[in-house]
Amino acid sequence: MATSVNLLTQQAYQIPDSLDDSEAIEEFLSRNKEKKVVVVQGLGFVGAVMSIVCANALTEEYAVIGVDLANENTYWKIKSINDGIFPLISDDPKIEEFFERSREQGNLLATYDPVAYKYADVVIVDINLDVKKISEECGVLKEFDVDLSGFKAAIRSVGAHCRDNVLVLVETTVPPGTCENIVKPIIEDQLTQRGLTTAKYRLGHSYERVMPGPEYIDSIREFPRVYSGCNVASADAIEAFLNTIIDTSICDLTRLEHTNATEMCKVLENSYRAMNISFAIEWSRFSEEAGVDLYAMVNAIRARKTHANLMYPGIGVGGYCLTKDPLLASWARKSFFGSDSDLSMSVNSVSLNDQMPGFAFERLINVFGDIAGLKIAFLGVSYRGDVGDTRFTPVEKLVRLVEDAGANTVLHDPYVSYWQEMDRRIESCLDTVLSLDVDVIVISAGHSEYKSSKAIVKLLERESIKIYDTIGLLSNEQISLLQEKHKVSVLGRGDL
Amino acid sequence: MATSVNLLTQQAYQIPDSLDDSEAIEEFLSRNKEKKVVVVQGLGFVGAVMSIVCANALTEEYAVIGVDLANENTYWKIKSINDGIFPLISDDPKIEEFFERSREQGNLLATYDPVAYKYADVVIVDINLDVKKISEECGVLKEFDVDLSGFKAAIRSVGAHCRDNVLVLVETTVPPGTCENIVKPIIEDQLTQRGLTTAKYRLGHSYERVMPGPEYIDSIREFPRVYSGCNVASADAIEAFLNTIIDTSICDLTRLEHTNATEMCKVLENSYRAMNISFAIEWSRFSEEAGVDLYAMVNAIRARKTHANLMYPGIGVGGYCLTKDPLLASWARKSFFGSDSDLSMSVNSVSLNDQMPGFAFERLINVFGDIAGLKIAFLGVSYRGDVGDTRFTPVEKLVRLVEDAGANTVLHDPYVSYWQEMDRRIESCLDTVLSLDVDVIVISAGHSEYKSSKAIVKLLERESIKIYDTIGLLSNEQISLLQEKHKVSVLGRGDL
Repeated sequence: MATSVNLLTQQAYQIPDSLDDSEAIEEFLSRNKEKKVVVVQGLGFVGAVMSIVCANALTEEYAVIGVDLANENTYWKIKSINDGIFPLISDDPKIEEFFERSREQGNLLATYDPVAYKYADVVIVDINLDVKKISEECGVLKEFDVDLSGFKAAIRSVGAHCRDNVLVLVETTVPPGTCENIVKPIIEDQLTQRGLTTAKYRLGHSYERVMPGPEYIDSIREFPRVYSGCNVASADAIEAFLNTIIDTSICDLTRLEHTNATEMCKVLENSYRAMNISFAIEWSRFSEEAGVDLYAMVNAIRARKTHANLMYPGIGVGGYCLTKDPLLASWARKSFFGSDSDLSMSVNSVSLNDQMPGFAFERLINVFGDIAGLKIAFLGVSYRGDVGDTRFTPVEKLVRLVEDAGANTVLHDPYVSYWQEMDRRIESCLDTVLSLDVDVIVISAGHSEYKSSKAIVKLLERESIKIYDTIGLLSNEQISLLQEKHKVSVLGRGDL
Repeated sequence: MATSVNLLTQQAYQIPDSLDDSEAIEEFLSRNKEKKVVVVQGLGFVGAVMSIVCANALTEEYAVIGVDLANENTYWKIKSINDGIFPLISDDPKIEEFFERSREQGNLLATYDPVAYKYADVVIVDINLDVKKISEECGVLKEFDVDLSGFKAAIRSVGAHCRDNVLVLVETTVPPGTCENIVKPIIEDQLTQRGLTTAKYRLGHSYERVMPGPEYIDSIREFPRVYSGCNVASADAIEAFLNTIIDTSICDLTRLEHTNATEMCKVLENSYRAMNISFAIEWSRFSEEAGVDLYAMVNAIRARKTHANLMYPGIGVGGYCLTKDPLLASWARKSFFGSDSDLSMSVNSVSLNDQMPGFAFERLINVFGDIAGLKIAFLGVSYRGDVGDTRFTPVEKLVRLVEDAGANTVLHDPYVSYWQEMDRRIESCLDTVLSLDVDVIVISAGHSEYKSSKAIVKLLERESIKIYDTIGLLSNEQISLLQEKHKVSVLGRGDL
């Protein structure tokens, strides 16, 4: 019998055979009479948090039902929410606070039964939509595809149960054109099949700008948003709903003319960021070749306001968005709009960013020589400073390359205890790791703890070692100090 | 006998047979005894202005000699300066003011005689260094090269005459590595050949950020600068010199560690800008295909500080820098540093930007149909708003494409009376052009005059016409007004 393991508690749950959870849903709704019902589809990094944001709406008390699939990867989240354990580790105290309040209010339920959509005034679509990177040549991305079958099935599941006057708000990052070409026809087809009118439902798109980290909740509630509807009535309904959960005294809502526009806006935004990172990657390699310090150059250039978004070099891109959104855009341009042109700058960004851990590895070998048999400690496995998110972290590739080259690794991260993608336990005590008998320390994530003077003192206490800063975490002062004893190399800087 | 025509006055000068101008130089120096001598090599858009900035230095009165070649393209500039006509049209009133003051002081001379370098305390190198775009396939840049022979000859000319304790400041945008690999060996070789010591000369690099336009002078004097020297004594000397001409109470001087670094900094800075423009190009085409408004998206995204440099779409890139600097970088990476990797993001930027006028033409045809036999007016031929600079303007390509398609053109620009590259007279009266019997008006440069309500009123007075705004100059309000009567299309916007 299939089970699903809670990644936080390691508790194993039996996955039920039947999808019938109607008793729990009806009981929940009987306790939440006269509240509008918001159903959040998908309980991942966005949906789980969106659920508690809705359950703590600013101007209305909603009955919120989070829906996910009853499979190995997601069933445990449903159980965990209902058992009172929020299915994400976060250092934003508001997460716990909001979750607790929704439990006290009794206005949050999680379920796997799609019958939940039947009761929804609002359905928020927060499921994943992945890109499959099919082939590469010498590290350069050659072929990729977007498989919409899972997404279509999810929308069908909404359409098969929803009321004819439901408001569907798509938040998933989708290929531009998806609401018009995919969501709208599916919903209308399902309504028609059930003999219902297609004149009353409303559909729109608005994307979140969630940032896992200490301001997780605020990054939803207090961050400007764009939105659109497939017609004016839909746009009005989306606006009215967003006004109940977003603090518009702090941030603006901007209406765009069409769902194509908001969908494009999201992937454009992330493509811009991915491009800036990939640009830094190429110049960091050039600056290493020319023996100069890219950080100093970037600082000098950023003094110009027109150049303030120029980025520092780094180990690459991680997370769920920047690694795929430019590809969604490119795919849509060809598939939905029949263009024979690529978005070459955006697609090349993803390809370059994916190669960066390989470049970082090359430099490690160039500077420190053969690493076979060496013991190498990595400080940080998440893809972002002070965040415990390891999805698509570039550190994964670098660790694999280092291990493939015959080195042994020790991994540290204060925000990650278990690294799911690598199935590895992660050290949490920095003091211990810095005292270990290792040959090389690789600084691979920008966690504040690594910049602390305590960490530097600890490093200075030990025998000579090799230190490879892949993200420019160390200050010039710290580098000078460390260089008195250790060999220090910084990615994006020529010889120090 | 060869002549050189003054582009401002149309006066033709006979080019002298002999390079001997020593009498004028000696007379000039006898009038400027005890002043330090600054020789500016190159009297183009940077050198000419740099000459008057140095002649009006903040803390010292220099004797300034501008040197250029006695050939058809440049000899007239020498004559023009000595005759009291500054060889550039500019709407910066300081240009005339600085030039007049240097004439009153008698501390500015222009010459073609390289013997001038013999007297220099400081030589500032402000000559051009071009990239040759060799081949393309379907508009995509395939092959390019950098020919250093002219640059090398210029440096040899300095080295052949200069004192052994000269300070050479290279301001030309060069492939990173040029000071170290080209300038230094040539100067040392020339000094050695003349039996002089190579221990005393000083050499460094600092790039200007000149912006032709109403703040031409301030863009040199009051804009932050980076600089470097080939050794510490050189860097110190450069710093001391810059302090005499740059207003460091307003802007910072930043020392970088190596000439490689400042040289790279310049091309990095411009590559970043070129990349942002090319990014907008691809997305503007996508937004047209998807029928949405890229301007609205960019506005929504720019609300994020991390995305503030995202650019609006446009007709392409012009000017002397962005069209070639990324290629200088790529060339240097391979030629000076032996890398087998390209700077793909930067090189692709140039290629895309070069294609943009072609894309703008395609859209013109798509929206307005066949243009054969039509009369089309272009508003603006320069590459930048409120500036009269036509070097590499993208309007040139668009005009040629339109004419090749069988249309007749009328060209207007308030800042350009004669378009050198096209050998065309340019209309200067907007009223007249807007009253002409034309079929299409293309807004092709962002001059303020075109945005004025007077221009809009004039447009509304006439019969229905087609208006193609290639640079997003019109406001939404203006578009609504114009649409009542005319067919309006904006590049980067779907159907309005």
